[in-house]
Amino acid sequence: MHHSKYRILNRLSPVQMLLLFYFIAVLLSTFTLALPFTHQDGVEIAFVDLLFTSVSAISVTGLSTISIVDSLSTLGVIVLAMIMQLGAVGIMSIGTLIWLVLGKRIGLKERSLIMTDQNQSSFQGMVRLIKQIIYVLLVIEFIGFLILGTYFLRYFPTASEAYLHGFFGTISAISNAGFDITGQSLIPYDHDYFVQFIYMLLIILGAIGFPVWIEVKEYVFFKKGRRNFFRFSLFTKLTTFTFFTLIGVGALGIFLLDINHFFVGKSWHESLFYALFQSVTTRSGGLSTMDVSLLSESNHLFLSFLMFIGASPSSAGGGIRTTTFALALIFIITYIRGGRSVRIFNREIYEGDMSKAVTVTLVAFIFVFSSILLMSIVEPFSLDQILFEVTSAFGTVGLSLGITGELSTFSKIILMLLMFIGRVGIITFLLMFTKKKKKEKYSYPKERVIIG
Amino acid sequence: MHHSKYRILNRLSPVQMLLLFYFIAVLLSTFTLALPFTHQDGVEIAFVDLLFTSVSAISVTGLSTISIVDSLSTLGVIVLAMIMQLGAVGIMSIGTLIWLVLGKRIGLKERSLIMTDQNQSSFQGMVRLIKQIIYVLLVIEFIGFLILGTYFLRYFPTASEAYLHGFFGTISAISNAGFDITGQSLIPYDHDYFVQFIYMLLIILGAIGFPVWIEVKEYVFFKKGRRNFFRFSLFTKLTTFTFFTLIGVGALGIFLLDINHFFVGKSWHESLFYALFQSVTTRSGGLSTMDVSLLSESNHLFLSFLMFIGASPSSAGGGIRTTTFALALIFIITYIRGGRSVRIFNREIYEGDMSKAVTVTLVAFIFVFSSILLMSIVEPFSLDQILFEVTSAFGTVGLSLGITGELSTFSKIILMLLMFIGRVGIITFLLMFTKKKKKEKYSYPKERVIIG
Ligand SMILES: [K+]
Ligand SMILES: [K+]
Repeated sequence: MHHSKYRILNRLSPVQMLLLFYFIAVLLSTFTLALPFTHQDGVEIAFVDLLFTSVSAISVTGLSTISIVDSLSTLGVIVLAMIMQLGAVGIMSIGTLIWLVLGKRIGLKERSLIMTDQNQSSFQGMVRLIKQIIYVLLVIEFIGFLILGTYFLRYFPTASEAYLHGFFGTISAISNAGFDITGQSLIPYDHDYFVQFIYMLLIILGAIGFPVWIEVKEYVFFKKGRRNFFRFSLFTKLTTFTFFTLIGVGALGIFLLDINHFFVGKSWHESLFYALFQSVTTRSGGLSTMDVSLLSESNHLFLSFLMFIGASPSSAGGGIRTTTFALALIFIITYIRGGRSVRIFNREIYEGDMSKAVTVTLVAFIFVFSSILLMSIVEPFSLDQILFEVTSAFGTVGLSLGITGELSTFSKIILMLLMFIGRVGIITFLLMFTKKKKKEKYSYPKERVIIG
Repeated sequence: MHHSKYRILNRLSPVQMLLLFYFIAVLLSTFTLALPFTHQDGVEIAFVDLLFTSVSAISVTGLSTISIVDSLSTLGVIVLAMIMQLGAVGIMSIGTLIWLVLGKRIGLKERSLIMTDQNQSSFQGMVRLIKQIIYVLLVIEFIGFLILGTYFLRYFPTASEAYLHGFFGTISAISNAGFDITGQSLIPYDHDYFVQFIYMLLIILGAIGFPVWIEVKEYVFFKKGRRNFFRFSLFTKLTTFTFFTLIGVGALGIFLLDINHFFVGKSWHESLFYALFQSVTTRSGGLSTMDVSLLSESNHLFLSFLMFIGASPSSAGGGIRTTTFALALIFIITYIRGGRSVRIFNREIYEGDMSKAVTVTLVAFIFVFSSILLMSIVEPFSLDQILFEVTSAFGTVGLSLGITGELSTFSKIILMLLMFIGRVGIITFLLMFTKKKKKEKYSYPKERVIIG
């Protein structure tokens, strides 16, 4: 058995493992992107921008203080794609590990492959599971690369250019990184609905979360004729429902908030695709088919709200996560209704999960607000622009109203921290500071307090 | 006994009583302010502005779409003072009633006058308590009126003018209404530290909450020599600690955020009083010794945060309340520390109270965010200005960056709703929609969910 191989890793706590991975990956990425052959001739990039690009790529955010297409060589572009891939898979894998090690198995326990052999260590089961996921990811990426690359032949003079765009675009979309090598995101394809459809599909696959992939795969391979007996977990139902509701409500909201502004004179299909694509991309994709600064200020606020929520847990995205948002809402609604037990899809929700969701939301508010406050001290930009940049970093989305390149080093550091926190998730981030629970020696009398 | 007098009121739920009071008070106020003798000669005021002024006065917010000094006659000014007084006392009284009826007696049970006679109904006890409070309030107001009025003789040519300013100023300060008849708030006294000191004292008395008054009074009248045995309730300790911490941190923050801007060239005592007064006034007073739009954008954000928190429960102020803020923070800190029981001042906090605090905070976020989003659709103003106006209304503070008078009717309606919700408090507001808890017939299996 390969037991010895994992001995050192086993000594680390999953959270330490994640930190170590992040640290090494960013270091490696910064170093590689500093090598001259990854640059175009004569291009020099400041250290803080190399670091920013690396953090942005590892946390698959896609915010960039430099223009990728003007700075990186073809080799640099391929390296950047690898870094995005590493970031997406690495953090998702270790994130899934943390989730399993901490015993939050979400009903997968009985069904997932990890547990089919009761004798294997959960760590080895994890490794097998992650290998499977990576295998599926690579297959999807290869299909995406073939479709997009071939289709792009009509856009580019040479096949190598077309397939480079197909390769980079596929990885950027499914890893939800959102970097582009067109120099203007997907604006060149703003009337090519086929390209947009493929991109949306890839972004959704990357943002919907590994656990959903696993369950859908299990459903597909479930014995035919007995599929009625297959039950999707509460988690999968809740996260998927919230995910697609957010996309629908998001698209409608984006359209309505600019109905007298950006969407004036657009045909129904133009409006549909502009609104839909921009809604999908706030789940954490970050690619866009338009200059979002053309939207109205109220839409910037709305997009900030959508980016703050971000993607589903154990996905390639960031933010507070779809489930957190849903549970926080359910918590409030139940409270208003005067009910005690919180239930949805005919299941009761654990109070501990509710508390967690609410904690995550409040802590995220604190981080986002503090970041905006700090940045507003040093930046000349409007609150609108800063709010957008901050929620984009926290949701690891990567949309921007165009100020990223002009920010001070101080603000760049804040955004790097937000991308890190948004990507690993508030819960994992807080675990870094959580002490093990000690048994309380004393018990104090309880006393009530007016809330207001 | 006077039992029959209260029979009709007894049939209403306290929340219905509050709604009824609010509705009648606003109607009465709007009607009175529409009467010509309350206006200066030739001044016409639009209905929406009369309504806005009434809602603002009844909810003691102090936001105003008209200039009081240019629109109202001397009689009108006195009427407005009465309306503020009615608003402050009315909602505080009914609020205290709701709090008692719902059984949230916060340890006052054993000590407060309501319970000295076990045979009287709690409603009659309440009436006696509220009479006492109003008596204390009137005494304080009379002292404030004498001090300020007499002191103002040096500012005004006639005694009647000086005492009118003393009368209106005292009521505006202690009721935390924040209206002014100088036409420019307390800016004329921006170097008169005595006036500012008296005003701060009055604002703090109005914003610190009735329960604190009652306990302090009990402490003062407690048998001498046995005072060591007197124990302030957890509520009083927590709310008072939070209240003064916010004032301290607020003043420091306001100073630091404008150290290179507004405070350049100011002496230490000027800086101290500017920062301190503006910090005190965000608890919900609303009077100011400077044009707050001169402060930097980051300070506007900070003030918005302070106004969002607002005053203490059962006071003349609004917002989420100091206790809510404190409990939400304690909740987060305890979660991060990995502890289960939440305690402070050697007492454990009820989990139900924590949930309530968190619900209030989240619902307040939703209201504030939605209001900003809606107003940003129709208003040409910056996010900064709208955020400030919205939190000022919700915290019933009444500070403004100067846009109130130029707002559309749509936005005025939103602000009126926010003033109402902020004043009665989120919990009371939610009670209007809370159904009585039914016994659950079915129990659902619990299932865990990833939070992220
Ligand atoms: K992204
Ligand atoms: K006020």
